[in-house]
Amino acid sequence: RNNGARFDEARRVAIFGGTHGNEMSGVTLVNLWVKNGAEIQRKRVEAKPFITNPRAVEKCTRYVDTDLNRAFTPENLSHVLSAPLPLPRTSQPIRAEQSVPPCPQTPADCQPAGKTAPGGGDLPYEVQRAQEINRIFGPKGSPEAYDVIFDLHNTTSNMGCTLILESSKDHFILQMMNYIKKAIAPASCLVLLNEHPLLKYSTSRSVAKHPVGLEVGPQPQGVLRSNIFEAMRVILKHALDFIELFNEGMEFPPCTVEVFRVLERIDYPRDANGNIIAMVHPNLQDGDWEPLNAGDPMFQTFDGKTIHYQGSGTVYPTFINEAAYYEKQQAFVTTRRETLGTTSGHKRAAHNL
Amino acid sequence: RNNGARFDEARRVAIFGGTHGNEMSGVTLVNLWVKNGAEIQRKRVEAKPFITNPRAVEKCTRYVDTDLNRAFTPENLSHVLSAPLPLPRTSQPIRAEQSVPPCPQTPADCQPAGKTAPGGGDLPYEVQRAQEINRIFGPKGSPEAYDVIFDLHNTTSNMGCTLILESSKDHFILQMMNYIKKAIAPASCLVLLNEHPLLKYSTSRSVAKHPVGLEVGPQPQGVLRSNIFEAMRVILKHALDFIELFNEGMEFPPCTVEVFRVLERIDYPRDANGNIIAMVHPNLQDGDWEPLNAGDPMFQTFDGKTIHYQGSGTVYPTFINEAAYYEKQQAFVTTRRETLGTTSGHKRAAHNL
Ligand SMILES: [Zn+2]
Ligand SMILES: [Zn+2]
Repeated sequence: RNNGARFDEARRVAIFGGTHGNEMSGVTLVNLWVKNGAEIQRKRVEAKPFITNPRAVEKCTRYVDTDLNRAFTPENLSHVLSAPLPLPRTSQPIRAEQSVPPCPQTPADCQPAGKTAPGGGDLPYEVQRAQEINRIFGPKGSPEAYDVIFDLHNTTSNMGCTLILESSKDHFILQMMNYIKKAIAPASCLVLLNEHPLLKYSTSRSVAKHPVGLEVGPQPQGVLRSNIFEAMRVILKHALDFIELFNEGMEFPPCTVEVFRVLERIDYPRDANGNIIAMVHPNLQDGDWEPLNAGDPMFQTFDGKTIHYQGSGTVYPTFINEAAYYEKQQAFVTTRRETLGTTSGHKRAAHNL
Repeated sequence: RNNGARFDEARRVAIFGGTHGNEMSGVTLVNLWVKNGAEIQRKRVEAKPFITNPRAVEKCTRYVDTDLNRAFTPENLSHVLSAPLPLPRTSQPIRAEQSVPPCPQTPADCQPAGKTAPGGGDLPYEVQRAQEINRIFGPKGSPEAYDVIFDLHNTTSNMGCTLILESSKDHFILQMMNYIKKAIAPASCLVLLNEHPLLKYSTSRSVAKHPVGLEVGPQPQGVLRSNIFEAMRVILKHALDFIELFNEGMEFPPCTVEVFRVLERIDYPRDANGNIIAMVHPNLQDGDWEPLNAGDPMFQTFDGKTIHYQGSGTVYPTFINEAAYYEKQQAFVTTRRETLGTTSGHKRAAHNL
């Protein structure tokens, strides 16, 4: 008991939808909860539903200028002048006009997508949004930041319900994930651990002390499927229940959580010009989380040849054939299964009294 | 035999991909065939593979300015000045500048999506493309038009392989569809007849004497699935084989073809502000072509209520939960099953000799 981890109360919780504007479960749930928050209310939790990329939601696209879920970098968030601007030639203050091509009478429908940021420079819309979100829910890395942010995503991959963990050291979230897995059994919910030094990216949820990603699929972009919608809704319910119990002072005993750690990004086979020359093999398609071993079929070229996986040891592929990852040169990612242990968890306040 | 329909040889055949730029089977097949046409070559057929909306393909979006597959209207195709332009105030020739807002020094990245059309006016990109396609493959309705155009589409609906017929009187295409259905058995391929007075639209393929739509699904937008790709490829193979046999003079005996005639478009339930308040019911989701009767579940509201189908008689819903049809206020279409009879078919030339 003395070894238990003590956490601050997790009172300030945000639920993000529309970080990708065409992932409809989160967009729809958050829009519903903005209108009527009864479902996400708990006595000891302030849950704020929030549409992070309203312009992308409006257009039903993933993003407008750049991927919001990669935009929360220190450079983007530090301050507005940190955006790549041409250096001023004089010591005078930078004016917005200096950073854009000359267009003295820009017609209304001809404006760049990003409005001019205060302080100068036309930042991409999503960079501006990242700054706004960081102001409201952060600042990232500060004591004022929100305690928990759930960021709701859909995927075209057959991943089922997947919770995304950004740090294997986040015992509070590991306790939460353990709670959710038990609560929804016999339905299943897997944990993807993304703390890869190169493949980890600067997510919207990373503004919070405890970021939680939720991916549910398969669902096409721009489509709302009731089964995916309800699965996401149930996970949020249990997640909020966990936080409520935690804030009430309940002690959670030590536990172990099976996670899938991101290992490697696998691109589609391409020709010398960078054009894709093969598809995900039918044996691999929809086989997210199923073991893949050396020699297993991986791709099928357009002229019918099979390309086999060459890695060593068993990996568990996921994000297989995700629509949004063609532009990121990724056909799937491999993961390795491991078990993380947590200490027991309970809130600090109860012991500090 | 004397009652048989006689047709002209169908030598000039086009295969369109990318009419919707994010429907990847057609885009990929047509791109492959542009590079190497061996697979679609037949002795007596000139098959031209063609990407109809290259800018939408480039951006991996359905369209840039407007839906190309609704753009082949008489108004759009008649001539360039028929586009909605401000009337000139003087009798001088219309100059392009008169129809756009003043922007004397438009920067390069600030140009409107449609390039200025010859003769004046900034037409939407897809209207310009429709005119170009009509010049190359039409003119629509003229003796010079291509004999057959196959237009390759994907859908997020669970429609399997669906051939789309635009006229119940097109016995040549009915013979082709009968041939394809037999050739791919026991796999199945259904025929959707869209000659509804209100719901029929001005498709890219309508430029040809004999238009053929091909929808294969389910496949998310922006995704290439090998099973869908191969299914589409096989249908094209049989279609070209049929045309080759026909051009060789083979006689096709009378046959009947089961078709599903488009009846009615069903929208999502909405509130007073037009916001969607329900999803396709899980019992209906993925149930394309399965009978729907009065009282069957149709939608599920976000607060869990079931909305039942109210129509009379059995209908066969299809295009259920197609991503692109949210903006068209369509959750699915109903169809009625019927059987069309054809006369025997053979080419006219053989008898005129
Ligand atoms: Zn996403
Ligand atoms: Zn289409």
